[in-house]
Amino acid sequence: MEKSEATPRPDSVKREIMEATYRALSEHGYESLTIQAIADEFENSKSLLYYHYDGKDELLVDFLDYALHRFLDEIPIHNQHPAKRLRTLVDILVPETLDEEPYRVQLAMFELRVNAPHDPASRQQYLEVDRELKELLRDTVQQGVESGAFVAVDPDVEAERFLSLLTGVRVRRLTMDEAFPTTTAREALLTQIRRLETDTPPREDEADNGAS
Amino acid sequence: MEKSEATPRPDSVKREIMEATYRALSEHGYESLTIQAIADEFENSKSLLYYHYDGKDELLVDFLDYALHRFLDEIPIHNQHPAKRLRTLVDILVPETLDEEPYRVQLAMFELRVNAPHDPASRQQYLEVDRELKELLRDTVQQGVESGAFVAVDPDVEAERFLSLLTGVRVRRLTMDEAFPTTTAREALLTQIRRLETDTPPREDEADNGAS
Repeated sequence: MEKSEATPRPDSVKREIMEATYRALSEHGYESLTIQAIADEFENSKSLLYYHYDGKDELLVDFLDYALHRFLDEIPIHNQHPAKRLRTLVDILVPETLDEEPYRVQLAMFELRVNAPHDPASRQQYLEVDRELKELLRDTVQQGVESGAFVAVDPDVEAERFLSLLTGVRVRRLTMDEAFPTTTAREALLTQIRRLETDTPPREDEADNGAS
Repeated sequence: MEKSEATPRPDSVKREIMEATYRALSEHGYESLTIQAIADEFENSKSLLYYHYDGKDELLVDFLDYALHRFLDEIPIHNQHPAKRLRTLVDILVPETLDEEPYRVQLAMFELRVNAPHDPASRQQYLEVDRELKELLRDTVQQGVESGAFVAVDPDVEAERFLSLLTGVRVRRLTMDEAFPTTTAREALLTQIRRLETDTPPREDEADNGAS
């Protein structure tokens, strides 16, 4: 960590390292990932990579941060209806199909998450991911409540619930893989958003989805 | 696996092995757990343990099954209001305080979950856990809808949502540990149940919890 703070790396080099990490993760997964495998995917000088990182866990913590910010950049913060913003979030985090490559990367991130309680640096990074996502959700809900688009809910409780729901769906999908009922899970996320909207009464809306 | 199927073990021996596993897990966690550590906690003949199990992963799959059924036994299935049953489930799965010992056991189970995509036996066991919990939730919601205690929701979608929500809360709690906002997370679970109930309008109920 100190190494990289002492020598700030140009953004382009960092991006190349992160993209090499993505490719290496999607090929090898977390278990058999080595810093050598990442170096093999890195098109620039290998020594540059070894100069910045001592080991794979340190690199993966940076990758987690990079993935978080690339994700946040995809979410339109302004000029979008709060419900639409939540749906965009669902589409990015729980896509209808999950190909082999992103599946392996998500699984690797999950393995890093499990390792977090044993490793202060990755735990810190997960706390940061949680904090940023929760802030995004809280701001979105608050904006919806204030504009009258959403019913009067507590934005903090709602953000907590939605973040846990998203996390749970992603974790269960990884464990169950092909047996995971993606359509039902996406329906569960989308009807949860519709329940917040003032113009769509939740009961009738859900009854349309085949309530018995 | 074949070994234990060929020689059915008496329930009392199995329970003793499972209790020894719980103690060993709470002491060592998953990472440094060995079958020897479980044997050390086992008060009966060690050879009995080695006779039934070859390795720790095989034993942990059985432990997962044992933990699931001990949990299911705690949930009153009959003669209980469906909302109350869901709250009981929340109290057991997301208790207000999580001591060091159950924390370590939960973390170990989470590590086993992450390992599941690489190991057919534990993956199969996780699918079974998911199936049983979802069935319990679906039956509870269906009963609530049919009796008029719950609003008209799709029991399958609702069960999917509640299970993912519970899983997400538990996973995030393990990652964040002391930084986890348990009170808010429990509030998120409990208001989700209240939203289902016909006698408590969700909007006013949530507004009482400090909506801005």
